Amino acid sequence: MAYWNVDKVPYVGTGADLKSGLGFHYYNADEVIGGKKMRDWLRFSVAYWHTFDQRLVDPFGDGTAIRPYDKYTDPMDQALAKVDYAFEFYDKLGVDYLCFHDRDLAPEGDTLRQTNANLDKVVDKIVENQKTSGMKVLWNTANMFTNPRFVAGAATSPYADVFAYSAAQLKHSLEIGKRVGSENYVFWGGREGYESLWNTDMKKEQEHAAKLFHLAKDYANEIGFDAQMLLEPKPKEPTTHQYDFDAATTIAFMKEYDLDKDFKLNLEGNHANLAGHTYQHEIRVAREAGLLGSLDANEGDKLIGWDIDEYPSNLYETTAAMYEVVEQGSIGPRGGLNFDAKPRRSSFAPEDLFYGHIVGMDSFAAGLRVALKMKEDKVLENLVADRYSSYQSGIGADIESGKASLADLENYSLDKTQKDLRDATSSDHLEQVKDTINHYIVSVLGGK
Amino acid sequence: MAYWNVDKVPYVGTGADLKSGLGFHYYNADEVIGGKKMRDWLRFSVAYWHTFDQRLVDPFGDGTAIRPYDKYTDPMDQALAKVDYAFEFYDKLGVDYLCFHDRDLAPEGDTLRQTNANLDKVVDKIVENQKTSGMKVLWNTANMFTNPRFVAGAATSPYADVFAYSAAQLKHSLEIGKRVGSENYVFWGGREGYESLWNTDMKKEQEHAAKLFHLAKDYANEIGFDAQMLLEPKPKEPTTHQYDFDAATTIAFMKEYDLDKDFKLNLEGNHANLAGHTYQHEIRVAREAGLLGSLDANEGDKLIGWDIDEYPSNLYETTAAMYEVVEQGSIGPRGGLNFDAKPRRSSFAPEDLFYGHIVGMDSFAAGLRVALKMKEDKVLENLVADRYSSYQSGIGADIESGKASLADLENYSLDKTQKDLRDATSSDHLEQVKDTINHYIVSVLGGK
Amino acid sequence: MAYWNVDKVPYVGTGADLKSGLGFHYYNADEVIGGKKMRDWLRFSVAYWHTFDQRLVDPFGDGTAIRPYDKYTDPMDQALAKVDYAFEFYDKLGVDYLCFHDRDLAPEGDTLRQTNANLDKVVDKIVENQKTSGMKVLWNTANMFTNPRFVAGAATSPYADVFAYSAAQLKHSLEIGKRVGSENYVFWGGREGYESLWNTDMKKEQEHAAKLFHLAKDYANEIGFDAQMLLEPKPKEPTTHQYDFDAATTIAFMKEYDLDKDFKLNLEGNHANLAGHTYQHEIRVAREAGLLGSLDANEGDKLIGWDIDEYPSNLYETTAAMYEVVEQGSIGPRGGLNFDAKPRRSSFAPEDLFYGHIVGMDSFAAGLRVALKMKEDKVLENLVADRYSSYQSGIGADIESGKASLADLENYSLDKTQKDLRDATSSDHLEQVKDTINHYIVSVLGGK
Amino acid sequence: MAYWNVDKVPYVGTGADLKSGLGFHYYNADEVIGGKKMRDWLRFSVAYWHTFDQRLVDPFGDGTAIRPYDKYTDPMDQALAKVDYAFEFYDKLGVDYLCFHDRDLAPEGDTLRQTNANLDKVVDKIVENQKTSGMKVLWNTANMFTNPRFVAGAATSPYADVFAYSAAQLKHSLEIGKRVGSENYVFWGGREGYESLWNTDMKKEQEHAAKLFHLAKDYANEIGFDAQMLLEPKPKEPTTHQYDFDAATTIAFMKEYDLDKDFKLNLEGNHANLAGHTYQHEIRVAREAGLLGSLDANEGDKLIGWDIDEYPSNLYETTAAMYEVVEQGSIGPRGGLNFDAKPRRSSFAPEDLFYGHIVGMDSFAAGLRVALKMKEDKVLENLVADRYSSYQSGIGADIESGKASLADLENYSLDKTQKDLRDATSSDHLEQVKDTINHYIVSVLGGK
Repeated sequence: MAYWNVDKVPYVGTGADLKSGLGFHYYNADEVIGGKKMRDWLRFSVAYWHTFDQRLVDPFGDGTAIRPYDKYTDPMDQALAKVDYAFEFYDKLGVDYLCFHDRDLAPEGDTLRQTNANLDKVVDKIVENQKTSGMKVLWNTANMFTNPRFVAGAATSPYADVFAYSAAQLKHSLEIGKRVGSENYVFWGGREGYESLWNTDMKKEQEHAAKLFHLAKDYANEIGFDAQMLLEPKPKEPTTHQYDFDAATTIAFMKEYDLDKDFKLNLEGNHANLAGHTYQHEIRVAREAGLLGSLDANEGDKLIGWDIDEYPSNLYETTAAMYEVVEQGSIGPRGGLNFDAKPRRSSFAPEDLFYGHIVGMDSFAAGLRVALKMKEDKVLENLVADRYSSYQSGIGADIESGKASLADLENYSLDKTQKDLRDATSSDHLEQVKDTINHYIVSVLGGK
Repeated sequence: MAYWNVDKVPYVGTGADLKSGLGFHYYNADEVIGGKKMRDWLRFSVAYWHTFDQRLVDPFGDGTAIRPYDKYTDPMDQALAKVDYAFEFYDKLGVDYLCFHDRDLAPEGDTLRQTNANLDKVVDKIVENQKTSGMKVLWNTANMFTNPRFVAGAATSPYADVFAYSAAQLKHSLEIGKRVGSENYVFWGGREGYESLWNTDMKKEQEHAAKLFHLAKDYANEIGFDAQMLLEPKPKEPTTHQYDFDAATTIAFMKEYDLDKDFKLNLEGNHANLAGHTYQHEIRVAREAGLLGSLDANEGDKLIGWDIDEYPSNLYETTAAMYEVVEQGSIGPRGGLNFDAKPRRSSFAPEDLFYGHIVGMDSFAAGLRVALKMKEDKVLENLVADRYSSYQSGIGADIESGKASLADLENYSLDKTQKDLRDATSSDHLEQVKDTINHYIVSVLGGK
Repeated sequence: MAYWNVDKVPYVGTGADLKSGLGFHYYNADEVIGGKKMRDWLRFSVAYWHTFDQRLVDPFGDGTAIRPYDKYTDPMDQALAKVDYAFEFYDKLGVDYLCFHDRDLAPEGDTLRQTNANLDKVVDKIVENQKTSGMKVLWNTANMFTNPRFVAGAATSPYADVFAYSAAQLKHSLEIGKRVGSENYVFWGGREGYESLWNTDMKKEQEHAAKLFHLAKDYANEIGFDAQMLLEPKPKEPTTHQYDFDAATTIAFMKEYDLDKDFKLNLEGNHANLAGHTYQHEIRVAREAGLLGSLDANEGDKLIGWDIDEYPSNLYETTAAMYEVVEQGSIGPRGGLNFDAKPRRSSFAPEDLFYGHIVGMDSFAAGLRVALKMKEDKVLENLVADRYSSYQSGIGADIESGKASLADLENYSLDKTQKDLRDATSSDHLEQVKDTINHYIVSVLGGK
Repeated sequence: MAYWNVDKVPYVGTGADLKSGLGFHYYNADEVIGGKKMRDWLRFSVAYWHTFDQRLVDPFGDGTAIRPYDKYTDPMDQALAKVDYAFEFYDKLGVDYLCFHDRDLAPEGDTLRQTNANLDKVVDKIVENQKTSGMKVLWNTANMFTNPRFVAGAATSPYADVFAYSAAQLKHSLEIGKRVGSENYVFWGGREGYESLWNTDMKKEQEHAAKLFHLAKDYANEIGFDAQMLLEPKPKEPTTHQYDFDAATTIAFMKEYDLDKDFKLNLEGNHANLAGHTYQHEIRVAREAGLLGSLDANEGDKLIGWDIDEYPSNLYETTAAMYEVVEQGSIGPRGGLNFDAKPRRSSFAPEDLFYGHIVGMDSFAAGLRVALKMKEDKVLENLVADRYSSYQSGIGADIESGKASLADLENYSLDKTQKDLRDATSSDHLEQVKDTINHYIVSVLGGK
């Protein structure tokens, strides 16, 4: 049966025709590179919401998407049918993982009891499909931002009934996570922030958020749901200011509320940009804190001030991201690359969902190839080692070991001249570094 | 003797002529308001660098400033003379505090020994002037970013000799702090960040920064220099990315390196904006973490992407900042408002230094008056209390106390309808809140 | 009859209680000020879309709005009922003008013929209500961006059928304009821009846009619809880049395509900010080009990168905008202030529509009062006259008259010293100017 | 003689070692490609200011640059010596053009007469060096922004004496242009904008600017200096708002003041970004208006809010820019690529000037190669032709020819269904387009 009018996407390599079609140039799933299969380095995941639910609306326009399951008019019928379309999509694309919010899967009822009943039917079908396909769930999560009840937050709502409801919804979502075998469980706090500081008790709201995170972890332990818990930062949108602004802010929060042992970070490129950072920066911050959990793969437009969730295609950014991953040896024991990305509103055809994932997967696969070659050649490793070499011995070693006191360092420095100090520094030759990166991208990918 | 062709700035009140002159409309230093003198609420400080040293250069133009001490051509002569101009300025303006970097005061020599000798002469004169004037030092700091030796950082320099030099410079700066009785000691890491991640070992650099902060605190303890240590966040400029991006990032760093007991934050309005935050947000974050130390008073232009350090004049922003201060009871035990602000390049006359400080002091004094009246009337207090009242009893209280488990909350929520939950929320009437704030500003300041 | 549970909003003046309620502090419609009634200076208009249609959705959440006409479930029934609610709203608020898109009023049918039939029924009812109420239409417009057919533009669509449809829709919209007596007709090109330059023939698209504008003007002439045609700039959103980026860009377009005789500009505060400008800047640009047509009154948050359409409340911005208006003598012969503004998603109660308009109307009324007093006192007029006085005579007059050649100016300048030239310039004392503006706002509004 | 410790930079092709050294991978000056030598397509120019004068200062730090002519301490001696260093630099780098401001070349005297005398000596030497080297001047310009006299503008200064001085300075600069054979003459109005609208008569200032441009053109004609006159847009910095904000704004100005016949635009990548545009957008706007004159080649960091003038290295941006150039057939009859770019402050070694230009030249050469191949394959041409094909005949042709009236278009559209219109549109497949561009870059440059 063919739900999607597209063949299984093959690896065609770099020798293929210059015009892109439905084939991978760089992603060759079972090719071993840097000691692992590409599929194991990258662990690509398809996001249910953007891929199967997103109608391509924007604040000024109705949905444009044309989807093969539009013929189903009853919401539950469509929800159930969509599972089949989704699993054929995964298979044709050649990914191993999916991700979903609870509300992506099935329509809400009037009560949570009814909503859960709807949801469970769809999850049953997903579990069935997992058995036959071998598909795994990278992570699941709970949508606690779309419904009007979350107008002022979920865990951080000023209204206790909304907190209670969120907790109840979360409980079921964790149970589903266990059923589908999610490797991670993600929290993106769409409404966990403030619209105005004038009416907000920020501290109380953050305490409530921490409370819910602890309840979640405790309950996961209780039911034996062994997922890595992840927080996903975003600075703004939909609220004026989100509490999980960026990686560093979220780390401060995790440390304050004793969550840094059990939680890690899920980082996204577009969110990074909206916070004024590169994706690489956010990954570095998390990696060095030992808190890199997983990655949301997408791309922003730095001249645009809102979240556009484009499929990643910028080879500089995927190379930089994969460089951090290669340095760490993996995205993280359970991490993967989930495409939190959607077609442009003008790319409304069903096959655009394939084109988008292909350029995204290929761009990260390309980034991985370049990063591994740079690692193999020790291009940056040597450059960095050399740059900090003065800390290997002498006064540098004494500084690092704690042996040197301020008085020692004063003695050491008091009579050094301006020139002595200038001579201690070297040019960074950053222009040459940028040239080298260009050369690596072109040479590695061009097959030289 | 009159170094500045300006009279002592009087408090003229709000009844004065509409055209502004050299008088305060809202700042009445010894007026008791909210239980304290205005001077004790605000603890205004003049920044040596922007006031006496800044030539009003910009990246495209030479300095335009006309200063009465331009006639001194020998650098040391000028440095010494400037002290007298500075103290008359403080007196005429009616402030109680000054702030300075070491390099603001005296020219560098070829070695640190020579530089320290130059500096000590000027500090001697400052100490003398303090005795006769009663002027206090809000904080001092070390300039470890201007000299080319700091091209790649001071504490975070890849070059051990530069770290050593920085430590030596810092040692003397701490000693000076003790001599002048600084109430705080500030670190703004102008070069503590990266130009490019490709050649940067961020973790090592941050460890080195933490190392220097610990050395500083230990040495301050050793010599009995009892200042509050402060870190000052800024996101970007001069480096591509500064480590102390914003309050939350700096708090994460302080927690990671065990600095949150001994260090607090010094926050600036323009820096807040460059990081994507309001000034109020940054103050709130620090306040709620118990880490608000002191404030740098200035204003940015949110449509401009670099640090402009304008004198604050926006009454919305000063009211919001002072609201946070009033909530805390003070800026902090040793905190003050230091004008890290300079005239526009086109405001190059000597008297513009007075105009700038006057509008800045008046704007914060106005903000204080408005904030205290709002506090007295419990305008926001009642609004906030009411908003979170559902946590006072019932399920809300059980959530906060930890009594409610996920299962309890599920039981509580399972059969609530969509309408039940909507009814649990209330409109925030934020438009009314904004109207109220306008009304308070106009009424309190207009004298109604 | 009371559709809205609110009394007619009274003018209560500045002496009223500090807490805001449903009353105007500054807007006193029939008070004569600066030679005109306030209602004639300001010509406030309510926007149908944001006020009566907007459900307070955002990209991450469903609508939260609670509206008294939600009880009508049939779209046409609701559309017709809403007219009554709208006219009571206008009356209670005390405005004289409304604005609408065609699609605000009635639901679309499957064909334009059916859509027009729906629309005409509602317009009939509006015309009736106008007769009894005296309400006028500031402007109407056609929504050519929401429906998926406009995915790639309306006039600039690459698909001729979409251009044709847009033209047909526009024709009927112009006819409606005539029926309701619109004083202006506005074009906001929501989709008239590009998503990507790679597939866009920008020149052809702009020619098509100009074509439609000419067709519109010609047809308006033909049917005797004597409205001022207006273009409304916006830089981005929903498209990556809109053709009418800002006032200057739109003026260049109007000049290129010979539209500057018949068209003027409708300018919006939030759009100005998104383009990197202040609202005042955009108004100044249009005013000086003789192309200021009308104003959309709202406010952005300069730290947020998308259109938020807040009700204006910032007195600095309303003062600056009204200063430009006062300088011109009016917004423009047919211009008004249309509130293209909506409540925050958390301000979902019906009465928030009143609160929002009240703070907006009051803020512009306040700005008008301050601007007129500054004008009366010639505060800025004198300052500007003095600043440019060197062009009144001598070499300055010769420059302006064209009498001075480059050679003359060389002769004049060749031996002037550095000091001579510095002495020719004066400090702008901008800090004092900002202090003066604060003082005017507080004194004029505070009633001193 | 070797002023620079670097060999003449060779073309090494793409087969060379992956680590970059002093060689071109893509720029092969005399290779004929797309019908022209690469040197004639690109016409690279070195900017005197950033290359030979820039000390690598920033607002927080002193210059770090180490230059071989630092040994000359007398300003005139250094100025004269630098000419030799410059011409050897051009030769070793292999460029054909230079650009300069008057003040780049020689120090100012106390009067313009003295300044001109200094300048003429250096120009004499440049002319001599041109004779032996064949080097040409792409453009020259006058620095009318650095000296304090320009604090409030040059042509737009409120002070007539400053306008007069600017005119005099400009006169001599035009004469120099004639002597050195400049192919273009550029105006970048560093101070031609406002700090505050409150004290600015924008219209008068713009009239004065236009006056000076006309005087310049007239005088150029008078002396037979046949250069293309160019205006260079920039949105902000150093002023709060520059008059030449972007291409479209400048075009509006040129049309208003009748300058669009004699002047064209010089466009810069970093300036484009600061105005919220891509470089490609700005080039497209100018190209379609017939006003593309020349290009300043550099790169910004879209996460940084000020002008950083990095050497271009982003192959996406150079490809996009060169695509526009290829579409036009050339940059413009007299246009070239001038590197208005400087090393990072941490790239302070003399050889970094080479590295920077190499990566810049190579990146544009690479972009040219990719753009030409896409042009040859008609990749985008076909895509665009197909997208707009509905205007080739039928109703589309009637629209373009002006044959179709609004009534005709209404008749055509009135009974089309929603589905009819949706079917008239096609998906843009933008994700596939991005994949194609990646593939072209890698394949063309990788040599496949």
